[in-house]
Amino acid sequence: MKSHKVKIPARKAGKYEITIGSGILPSLWGTIQADFRESGKFIVTDANLVSAGHLEGLLGGEKALSYIIKPAGEVSKTIGTVVSIIEAMEKAYLGRDTFVVGLGGGTVGDIAGFAASVFKRGVRVVHIPTTTVAQADSAIGGKTGVDSSLSKNAFGAFWHPSAVYIDVGTLGTLDERQYRAGLVESVKHALIADSEYFGLIEANIDAILARESAILEKIAELNCRIKGRVVETDPYEQNMRRILNYGHTIGHAVESASGYKLLHGEAVGIGIIGAGLIEVEMGLSDGGRLEKIRKILGKLGVPLGLGEDFAENELIDLIRRDKKAVNKWPKFVLLSEIGQVYCRDGQWAADVELSVVERVLQKLKQS
Amino acid sequence: MKSHKVKIPARKAGKYEITIGSGILPSLWGTIQADFRESGKFIVTDANLVSAGHLEGLLGGEKALSYIIKPAGEVSKTIGTVVSIIEAMEKAYLGRDTFVVGLGGGTVGDIAGFAASVFKRGVRVVHIPTTTVAQADSAIGGKTGVDSSLSKNAFGAFWHPSAVYIDVGTLGTLDERQYRAGLVESVKHALIADSEYFGLIEANIDAILARESAILEKIAELNCRIKGRVVETDPYEQNMRRILNYGHTIGHAVESASGYKLLHGEAVGIGIIGAGLIEVEMGLSDGGRLEKIRKILGKLGVPLGLGEDFAENELIDLIRRDKKAVNKWPKFVLLSEIGQVYCRDGQWAADVELSVVERVLQKLKQS
Repeated sequence: MKSHKVKIPARKAGKYEITIGSGILPSLWGTIQADFRESGKFIVTDANLVSAGHLEGLLGGEKALSYIIKPAGEVSKTIGTVVSIIEAMEKAYLGRDTFVVGLGGGTVGDIAGFAASVFKRGVRVVHIPTTTVAQADSAIGGKTGVDSSLSKNAFGAFWHPSAVYIDVGTLGTLDERQYRAGLVESVKHALIADSEYFGLIEANIDAILARESAILEKIAELNCRIKGRVVETDPYEQNMRRILNYGHTIGHAVESASGYKLLHGEAVGIGIIGAGLIEVEMGLSDGGRLEKIRKILGKLGVPLGLGEDFAENELIDLIRRDKKAVNKWPKFVLLSEIGQVYCRDGQWAADVELSVVERVLQKLKQS
Repeated sequence: MKSHKVKIPARKAGKYEITIGSGILPSLWGTIQADFRESGKFIVTDANLVSAGHLEGLLGGEKALSYIIKPAGEVSKTIGTVVSIIEAMEKAYLGRDTFVVGLGGGTVGDIAGFAASVFKRGVRVVHIPTTTVAQADSAIGGKTGVDSSLSKNAFGAFWHPSAVYIDVGTLGTLDERQYRAGLVESVKHALIADSEYFGLIEANIDAILARESAILEKIAELNCRIKGRVVETDPYEQNMRRILNYGHTIGHAVESASGYKLLHGEAVGIGIIGAGLIEVEMGLSDGGRLEKIRKILGKLGVPLGLGEDFAENELIDLIRRDKKAVNKWPKFVLLSEIGQVYCRDGQWAADVELSVVERVLQKLKQS
């Protein structure tokens, strides 16, 4: 018996720039053409973006290869859509010099990023997020993925973008429910990392809901700083990055159990309250903190609890299927205070007993 | 307009060990259980391996979660098979602590590796290659992929294994055609990197065809050294790694155009002769070298040319779709002598005019 060792050098360290502004969309196509050498630029967007005029806003009169996801939304975030995109790129004879441009919300970014990660073993991608949830969260950090028939993001890759361009002006066309739901991710960032940011949201909630550019740019910048810092520390989610998952363990299960009738941000809002209830159960909070959180989520107008038609055993089953589950049960990210995640023995996610989660799900149904 | 930079640290450098022996299969399940901590071991194999007794050989009497690809072979190397594997892992409630064990030929390894690369954004994999082509080539180097309806490996990822275990004893059950076709990849390694190795194959061709363990272990070791060295230098195929693609540009097109009736190694054999004809056309060879190569491939009994039913325009179209194509035309890896790839201006792949390739395809049809 002989053995031979193969050494794999580290992939090069990289960095990417997030550009934030209001009304910058019309200049971006020129920027992308100038900054990235790949000849095969390929836009992935969805039907909503086309009808809102943003694809035209990006391109001006220019022509470009593109794939329009139809229907828009979570229902299209499937491996089948990725297969269609890959085949569209092949039909256009695109090769390894393909460069994907994702224009749209979180769903578009997840699909475009994953398609880029697997096409011909990986091509580059930039994101132009156009929703509150994508600008706050999903466009930054390199997580991509699509759903299987059984669970969210069963397929995925860590695939960092080469740049992100945030035009808060694109939020103007977002429908009210989507707009408000996406702000939950901003609340989450404040909760896990920055109590002053939480205060800023509380103090400016009316301007935020009125979609005033100045406050939206400020929020975008704070979100990028917080998420960027976490991603830099732990780009491949070995440990600390999990704090970004606050509210998401219950949130993902609720989103799935609703048959995606709840928006991602709405489900995460319920998940944040669920995490708050776990904190109370475990003695990490006296309940006053949870009331502050309920109050701000209430102003956003997102649901604060589960309807009667949610079955606890289905939710528990979905929680077991969580991507981060080990031995069929995930750990939970919890807060020790606003702006501070509970960390014990260097672990940023805590063991929570099944019975505690069951009690919390019952309470969520009563609220 | 503001900007914010996110820095992505390099992924850690890694290494993996290739273990080579004869009759080691029955010990490997214990080795894997002892060496890798993940609880969710999941075997991906195919119907041929089961009927050859190798799944039982690996497991002894032990039980393990597994997915058996049916039918075996290139026809199952599709994104649909990957979807089935992912959903089987989900149904078993496997999470991020899944550890995939690929047992089989190149097709199994490509599928198992790609499934591991995308499941929950990536889990670890080890390969136990059981064919001449997989032991020589595909198990080493981290390339994974599956075909779309339009081309080979349209979906894929670079996903390095955590270990590779080569038992040359498993080659005993391989059918004669598969066995011989797979040896073409060993000839390719000799051609691109080691003229002494080419001499060793010439001198020992009878023992090789008789499947004698000692020479098979020697060949396995030389293949691993050559491929390992290239992969270490260029793990993500930025430049030099392309030399491994010798014979593959025409080979992939021929394989696809045959409707996968030609085995991968058989198609690569034709591609190697095609590359040799290009070398003659371009004045890189006087033809004597090509005759030596034809002679050894002839002893392997693989086809040395194209049948009349291959359409040149279809082959050209498929060559245009090559994953490495830039501006719809790939570069070609060529030899300057046996054991030495032609390199000019630091480039390991050369520009070849369309008309040259067209002439070479005509000659391949006449041979």
